[in-house]
Amino acid sequence: MHVDGRPLRTLWGATDRDALHVIDQRQLPHRLCIERLTGAEQAHVAIRDMWVRGAPLIGATAAYGLALQARTDAADAALRRAAQQLASARPTAVNLAWALQRMLARLLGLPLAQRAAAAWDEAEAIAEEDVATNQAIGRHGLPLLRAVAARRPGPVQVLTHCNAGWLATVDWGTALAPVYAAQAEGLPVHVWVDETRPRNQGASLTAWELGQQGVPYTLIADNAGGHLMQRGQVDIVLVGCDRVAANGDVCNKIGTYLKALAARDNGVPFYAAMPRSTLDLSLRDGRREIPIEERDARELTHIHGRATDGRWLEVQLAPDGCRAANPAFDVTPAALVSGLITELGIVPAQADALHALMEGQA
Amino acid sequence: MHVDGRPLRTLWGATDRDALHVIDQRQLPHRLCIERLTGAEQAHVAIRDMWVRGAPLIGATAAYGLALQARTDAADAALRRAAQQLASARPTAVNLAWALQRMLARLLGLPLAQRAAAAWDEAEAIAEEDVATNQAIGRHGLPLLRAVAARRPGPVQVLTHCNAGWLATVDWGTALAPVYAAQAEGLPVHVWVDETRPRNQGASLTAWELGQQGVPYTLIADNAGGHLMQRGQVDIVLVGCDRVAANGDVCNKIGTYLKALAARDNGVPFYAAMPRSTLDLSLRDGRREIPIEERDARELTHIHGRATDGRWLEVQLAPDGCRAANPAFDVTPAALVSGLITELGIVPAQADALHALMEGQA
Repeated sequence: MHVDGRPLRTLWGATDRDALHVIDQRQLPHRLCIERLTGAEQAHVAIRDMWVRGAPLIGATAAYGLALQARTDAADAALRRAAQQLASARPTAVNLAWALQRMLARLLGLPLAQRAAAAWDEAEAIAEEDVATNQAIGRHGLPLLRAVAARRPGPVQVLTHCNAGWLATVDWGTALAPVYAAQAEGLPVHVWVDETRPRNQGASLTAWELGQQGVPYTLIADNAGGHLMQRGQVDIVLVGCDRVAANGDVCNKIGTYLKALAARDNGVPFYAAMPRSTLDLSLRDGRREIPIEERDARELTHIHGRATDGRWLEVQLAPDGCRAANPAFDVTPAALVSGLITELGIVPAQADALHALMEGQA
Repeated sequence: MHVDGRPLRTLWGATDRDALHVIDQRQLPHRLCIERLTGAEQAHVAIRDMWVRGAPLIGATAAYGLALQARTDAADAALRRAAQQLASARPTAVNLAWALQRMLARLLGLPLAQRAAAAWDEAEAIAEEDVATNQAIGRHGLPLLRAVAARRPGPVQVLTHCNAGWLATVDWGTALAPVYAAQAEGLPVHVWVDETRPRNQGASLTAWELGQQGVPYTLIADNAGGHLMQRGQVDIVLVGCDRVAANGDVCNKIGTYLKALAARDNGVPFYAAMPRSTLDLSLRDGRREIPIEERDARELTHIHGRATDGRWLEVQLAPDGCRAANPAFDVTPAALVSGLITELGIVPAQADALHALMEGQA
């Protein structure tokens, strides 16, 4: 994707293979800060403290983190320890565990001397595959938008929640990949961007990203989506996923479930986009089994923004001593999901289809 | 209700009948500022700029605004002009128009010399009736909470949206009146408080108000309510209303509809509390006919809060040039409403029951 007209990915390895560059997304939309991570511990912090976020992106970041570990100590114990620490950074998105397992499976059978090089190659492969995967998601999702455009004039009205765009992946995004594919072929599209409390990834990341790519968008409160659907102003809901269980239940950013309910109530199709690495067939029932991260109450009681003098400040919104609960994800029951847009095609959110998908059939 | 242990109403007339005192609610929860309004124009600004908000409270404020007008010029034209201006301050809540119509009906038939005194008396009557009405709403809603408490141990878990408490009325509140009634009889109750973007009335007003009254509460993102209901952590949803149409459709703060959908999906009762003055039988179909106020985009792109140095600051959340849409209300279809808690009792959200209610039967 592009920032100020120049191509940029959300992460890239140093040519000397001694560091990983990532955007510190906490500074967006006001500052574009590139951070240089030189070890697994730093990668852990970058994931835990959400310099990087988005299921595919934290998977790729963790893979590079393990590759940085392999440069200093590639013994089994050191790799396993680093992988365990990286995996503990966020509990909900399964791509994190998936990427680390893939790295360990690749490395633990190799002689010690080959591990550092192989680890870097594997991390690069994971990142490159993510790019290709997302482009494929874009291709497979595009016909959904074309169908709307064929039905009536005017831009296709997409509603999205949180950020499942370029910034949630290495490039292109998952939920937004079909939007960028539409843009590339000149299909007019407009995106309603949920601001996505409490961390405001919609307002700070999706709005910024769409603006940089020149896709028309309008920011809305999370509360507004149902009203827009009642008024016929939403053609399709496109969201990402952090984990999808074998029964098709979709875990994604808190509030996704409410949009799925409104979509059903108003006959609006609701699609979740995901690479196959987001699928967790070890869980039969998403609602009962997917662990939901509970984050700091301060994300609700305080907020960061740019003051009129340009300073980056935190202000308090709630009363002193206010107690707050902050579940970061929810689970949308499969019955509310029109389909899952994957790199192999669109599949129903059903057990048999998801098992077939894992075996390479869509 | 009480603030720091002292009784306080959200508005009160000066003993000399020359001014209305209101809390400037924009400063809460960080500052309790009492403003003194001395004319209809000031009352208009206080309603328009949301120093005061909440359907019953803006009705009472407008009534006093017209009483202040009657002190300086009580001629028909002046009263009608002031009423028209006051009514234009906010378009959605019908209590505003209701209070002004009641004032005009009382005043226009009187000799000019009697109007100022009668206007003040009528405004006081509207305010006092609001207090009594809300206490009655509390009495009628209380059995709903008692029934939960009788079913299982632990506090009754209420979820509320926006602020339909003391601060939305002259005293006691509508949706929160049953909560305060429960508290008064020692029934343990806990309130999940939706922060209520974009103006954060939940975080800044409901949280503050409940904290002052000593009712246990937890602030949550608007996105979290569905997840809590899925987990069985909500016994009942209680919200206020800004206008209820003859078909039982409930217009309330944007996002209410999403909570009603989640309540239905999880078998959680969803009640809206309202004085009869919120009923607008002139509208047959709420979804089609209730005008929805569109507010400034800046309410989404920027936010006010208290900086660490104690200053009250506005910070920018969204990218420069971000476009935003800000519908302030939505309409919950009657089919999603378990019942309406009124000063005459709980009635179904159905045309025949609402017509009977208007005639004094519940």
